[in-house]
Amino acid sequence: MIVEVLAVGTELLLGQIVNGNGAYLGARLAEHGFDAHYQVVVGDNVERIAAVIKTSLARSDALIITGGIGPTQDDLTREALCLATSRRLVHSEAWAATLLDRWTAAGRVMPESNLRQAEYPESAELLGNEKGTAPGLFLRHNDKAIFVVPGVPEEMHALFDGPVLERLAALAGQSNVLVNRVLRTWGIPESKVGEMLDDLYRASTNPSIAFLASAAEIKVRITAKAADQAAARSLIAPVELAVRERLGSAVFGIDQETVESVLLAALAARGWTLGTAESATGGLVAGRITSVPGSSAVYRGSLIAYTSDLKQRLLHVDPTAGVVTESAALAMAEGARSLLAVDVVVAVTGSAGPEPAEQSVGTMIVGVATPEASRARTIRFPGDRERVRTYASTAALHLCRLAVVGEWWATP
Amino acid sequence: MIVEVLAVGTELLLGQIVNGNGAYLGARLAEHGFDAHYQVVVGDNVERIAAVIKTSLARSDALIITGGIGPTQDDLTREALCLATSRRLVHSEAWAATLLDRWTAAGRVMPESNLRQAEYPESAELLGNEKGTAPGLFLRHNDKAIFVVPGVPEEMHALFDGPVLERLAALAGQSNVLVNRVLRTWGIPESKVGEMLDDLYRASTNPSIAFLASAAEIKVRITAKAADQAAARSLIAPVELAVRERLGSAVFGIDQETVESVLLAALAARGWTLGTAESATGGLVAGRITSVPGSSAVYRGSLIAYTSDLKQRLLHVDPTAGVVTESAALAMAEGARSLLAVDVVVAVTGSAGPEPAEQSVGTMIVGVATPEASRARTIRFPGDRERVRTYASTAALHLCRLAVVGEWWATP
Repeated sequence: MIVEVLAVGTELLLGQIVNGNGAYLGARLAEHGFDAHYQVVVGDNVERIAAVIKTSLARSDALIITGGIGPTQDDLTREALCLATSRRLVHSEAWAATLLDRWTAAGRVMPESNLRQAEYPESAELLGNEKGTAPGLFLRHNDKAIFVVPGVPEEMHALFDGPVLERLAALAGQSNVLVNRVLRTWGIPESKVGEMLDDLYRASTNPSIAFLASAAEIKVRITAKAADQAAARSLIAPVELAVRERLGSAVFGIDQETVESVLLAALAARGWTLGTAESATGGLVAGRITSVPGSSAVYRGSLIAYTSDLKQRLLHVDPTAGVVTESAALAMAEGARSLLAVDVVVAVTGSAGPEPAEQSVGTMIVGVATPEASRARTIRFPGDRERVRTYASTAALHLCRLAVVGEWWATP
Repeated sequence: MIVEVLAVGTELLLGQIVNGNGAYLGARLAEHGFDAHYQVVVGDNVERIAAVIKTSLARSDALIITGGIGPTQDDLTREALCLATSRRLVHSEAWAATLLDRWTAAGRVMPESNLRQAEYPESAELLGNEKGTAPGLFLRHNDKAIFVVPGVPEEMHALFDGPVLERLAALAGQSNVLVNRVLRTWGIPESKVGEMLDDLYRASTNPSIAFLASAAEIKVRITAKAADQAAARSLIAPVELAVRERLGSAVFGIDQETVESVLLAALAARGWTLGTAESATGGLVAGRITSVPGSSAVYRGSLIAYTSDLKQRLLHVDPTAGVVTESAALAMAEGARSLLAVDVVVAVTGSAGPEPAEQSVGTMIVGVATPEASRARTIRFPGDRERVRTYASTAALHLCRLAVVGEWWATP
């Protein structure tokens, strides 16, 4: 069953608010096994709202309209729905009485304009709204279903999760569920991941495979549709296994896991404490680690040595050599292990730009020291200062994780 | 001129990411005087992308498509655009060479699939993309204009604000220019700023006044429309003066200035160096300071002392007292002045959550020490760990700025 979401509101078109309702409904519909091919945003104009309702009804089985059912003159969804489906607007005495009761109970006089919220397209069912004054609407039109819910997120959530979802499931007969498994990878470029999985991508329709790049990490999403969660998971399992076999240790986590949380868990498993020593990334690595609740169980602190002087005086980097070198990164890591009294240190030095520092802009060096070994790697990143620093801090977290689990030492 | 935004990506339909690009483009188009009646989201399916392109071209003058131009198999915007406009896909030797150069410069071998990004619909103009590997596209089709930009926000912003906006303005034959002046404030709540400027807000249509809250800072945007830049600026000048008179030292910067850049400039003006000492913010303050190009002229480093032990051993915080107190924040600031050998230190300690540390969650303490004086302030922030840490680092930067310019000492 194909369900389309239509958001009404000029404030969305003007970018004054982000369409979070669209994301919420998209995720919830997918979870419950409904297909979505399109979402549309339209402004507060009765003809244009009616036009998109018609377009959407022609290509989808059901339509969920959010917004445009408040009490003011620019709330036009009710009128547009009448125009699109050739219905009259009628008045609900019952809802008018409900509204009046609520205002009276609050000790206030109801403005006349609120009675607009007791109007509805003929033959529609009114869906009670405990959190607001506009009822939801449910309308059958030819063989299609139309729902209208308020644009206020908490009212929309309550109406969608309750009466709307219940009616959608009934209309769909037995509804399929959609289950996602996201494999998070680092270290292989997006295009290379696509090549390595090309035959799987082409051969798999259920589950399907998609690639999502975000910063330096590539996510591989495997999506299965089945009668229930267990059946969907067993469709996913062999494909997940095949993807993992191809990508190996580039897969560092699943679903909502982050490299920060995976690194901290790996350290906790070994009983090791963590510190950082940063130059060019200037606190970004520490800031990401300490964003994880409970990180204080493992993470102890950092020396940010932005100047050569501090690197030499507090971390004992060789004063006669450069500071953007692999040996300087290793010295920073070893020096900070001692200064901070920790088991593992990840250190970053480099030339983040805009002016080059010793080496060309984008040259970043990560050093990691653990009780087992230490190692450094030089990576060159394209882009501006912000991007170089962000990508370098991501690389530092990943290399530290590989060192802690012993995989970095295993590769040439 | 009516401009429609079309976002391509199944991840948007599934609600895995929110369509922030739609909001950004909506806001920017409105600022520049373009009308928008619709926005559409469509999944990664070539027939459906082509279908919505046709629908959009039938009702709008120009179309901006975001996303679907990466290197993988599910990036289908190029193919869909060919299908919708009856064009062939052709190959750009020049862009292929650009791609190859970039990979080679980074010391890596380009996977074959990246050459997909050198393909484009015949007769389209390629728009250079400094921040990524997919070029933007500009295509005239009958009397309509079609732009394609990447879905990655930073790449999209650069392409839209540059070549796309320039071509749109030329097509629209725009004669008026729109000039913005943004006054950035900190320390007065948004509703209070609104009250203080209410009469100006009501009296001003050109220039108009708008309030934008972002994190703890409130921006007052003054926008004038006129025949040229100079005329627009002289409309803005008296209103800016009036706003500054009302808001006083809460105004810390204009336009693209940030508290980080303003703080660094104030330090440079006094010839002072800067260090930081962070506990609960764990590197966020340092990360923000070092995001500014050239910050190394003033900023020297930080000790992140996430544990009590490090605070006591390296910063000489009193081991017999608590670490989430104003005296601990002052001791951290003074201790770091000595350890890092700098003139000014801003220190942050606190209880960021989710579990309380000595004090209730959200209690954050900023201490600043300069060659002139030192002072600490306790602030309680609502919200979760991420919000508390972000707002506290903003407060730390602002209080440090007020201390450096001598204003903090002047207030009770």
